[in-house]
Amino acid sequence: MPVFQAQDPAYETRVRESFARQTLMATIGARLALVAPGRVEIELPYRADLTQQHGFLHAGITSAIADSAGGYAGYSLFPAGSSVLTVEFKINLTAPAAGERFLAIGEVLKPGRTLCICRLEVLGITGETRTTVAVGQQTLFCLEDRPDH
Amino acid sequence: MPVFQAQDPAYETRVRESFARQTLMATIGARLALVAPGRVEIELPYRADLTQQHGFLHAGITSAIADSAGGYAGYSLFPAGSSVLTVEFKINLTAPAAGERFLAIGEVLKPGRTLCICRLEVLGITGETRTTVAVGQQTLFCLEDRPDH
Amino acid sequence: MPVFQAQDPAYETRVRESFARQTLMATIGARLALVAPGRVEIELPYRADLTQQHGFLHAGITSAIADSAGGYAGYSLFPAGSSVLTVEFKINLTAPAAGERFLAIGEVLKPGRTLCICRLEVLGITGETRTTVAVGQQTLFCLEDRPDH
Amino acid sequence: MPVFQAQDPAYETRVRESFARQTLMATIGARLALVAPGRVEIELPYRADLTQQHGFLHAGITSAIADSAGGYAGYSLFPAGSSVLTVEFKINLTAPAAGERFLAIGEVLKPGRTLCICRLEVLGITGETRTTVAVGQQTLFCLEDRPDH
Repeated sequence: MPVFQAQDPAYETRVRESFARQTLMATIGARLALVAPGRVEIELPYRADLTQQHGFLHAGITSAIADSAGGYAGYSLFPAGSSVLTVEFKINLTAPAAGERFLAIGEVLKPGRTLCICRLEVLGITGETRTTVAVGQQTLFCLEDRPDH
Repeated sequence: MPVFQAQDPAYETRVRESFARQTLMATIGARLALVAPGRVEIELPYRADLTQQHGFLHAGITSAIADSAGGYAGYSLFPAGSSVLTVEFKINLTAPAAGERFLAIGEVLKPGRTLCICRLEVLGITGETRTTVAVGQQTLFCLEDRPDH
Repeated sequence: MPVFQAQDPAYETRVRESFARQTLMATIGARLALVAPGRVEIELPYRADLTQQHGFLHAGITSAIADSAGGYAGYSLFPAGSSVLTVEFKINLTAPAAGERFLAIGEVLKPGRTLCICRLEVLGITGETRTTVAVGQQTLFCLEDRPDH
Repeated sequence: MPVFQAQDPAYETRVRESFARQTLMATIGARLALVAPGRVEIELPYRADLTQQHGFLHAGITSAIADSAGGYAGYSLFPAGSSVLTVEFKINLTAPAAGERFLAIGEVLKPGRTLCICRLEVLGITGETRTTVAVGQQTLFCLEDRPDH
């Protein structure tokens, strides 16, 4: 993975404050596990009220934490005073989303002034066992001079 | 759009029972609005606890109703005694997900014995105004001889 | 499908001249079959030197004509003096790409000042029979004030 | 990246013979640069007759070598007597496809009995400089008991 430098020294505060405004994250019980330049991780404990028909985490929730992880990975590299929008993402659900908890990892593959491309991965974790349950790729848009709040 | 015949006369009951097992749908307040062979629609009223950082519906929730709509559109054409899995989907978020309510439409583009391809669309609706907020494409897998429950 | 108005009255000339600069299109024998605001079609006769291992049209060539059809569908709506770039696309290969000839259809789903979203479809045609061999979705970027040549 | 074992000891011959049947690869001048279990690389020298309108490699050709690299990465892990089909792929074009030559890398992310998920990357290479020009994700289908030829 490439190593990135944040151009805004206050990137972590900016990411954490924006994450706190995503009401969905609180609703489902997700929290930021890592905020680094170009890499953000979100943790979500399993809950029986977030499932699809077989009791696994619903693909929409898997996507929610993956999308937010990638979005904030990109946003960590954006300039102060900007906002982030997801243009699109693609996700493969590679295994049933089973686990005591889930970890979504968003990593910037290609930063850019207007567009930013991220890799997404979601792990299902039970004890010491980690299984990749989803992998994806995402395109973000940087709205310059449009503060996030 | 092509017109499809369901091979299982009990397709609608099968879809409705499986949808009822998706605990996430009840958690977010989504309901089935249409179940037809090869086409399923899911309605979701806006809720302030399901948003991203700007107060719009979170892309994960947009994806959740789109994925379920497409999944059940495919499942409506599958044989009795089968299950449906989402292999992958891709979604473009074409406008801020604003609206009093949202309607996710899943339509089968290409049925198949093992794989099924669907088109996804999510509308934001306020009064008489409907705006497309997301469009996507999805690949489903039919697990034959594996009942859904 | 929505009906679009081109903002540049010379859109058709602009599309045809840019298409003529795509040397790949001549190399594989593709030609423009339709240029309308927000919709472009490209036709390609089958050739035995463009195949994958089973003698069907290679997915890369299916993608090439789909990508160009979508790209020029978007470009037809862009302003004079602009260029078009493909940000990304996703394509499902829904049937073996068999046929005497192929028709790629690009249609704008969502125009925008910077980004434009298109739907892609490729048909395999033999006599009167048309089969959808691929469906896709594409994101384009409009480079304003950057002429195409 | 995970390390894989091929179940068919003749995997390399099987991949090379199938690649040789892809007439498109010879037409564009592509060759196999690496065949390993779960990883295949394809090299393509730049040619002025394979471009888009600005003289860069056309996205369809970038996709062609990426799709074949991923397809054969998956196929290397499939059993003897099977065939490979691409279900779908998604590709982001992250930089103009400039270079003296291009290297497409296909890597298996998740093998499976029926479906296999791969990561795709294409580099543009000039002298010692390597630039990622495309990244993608692909879903393959294994046709068991259906020899490739």
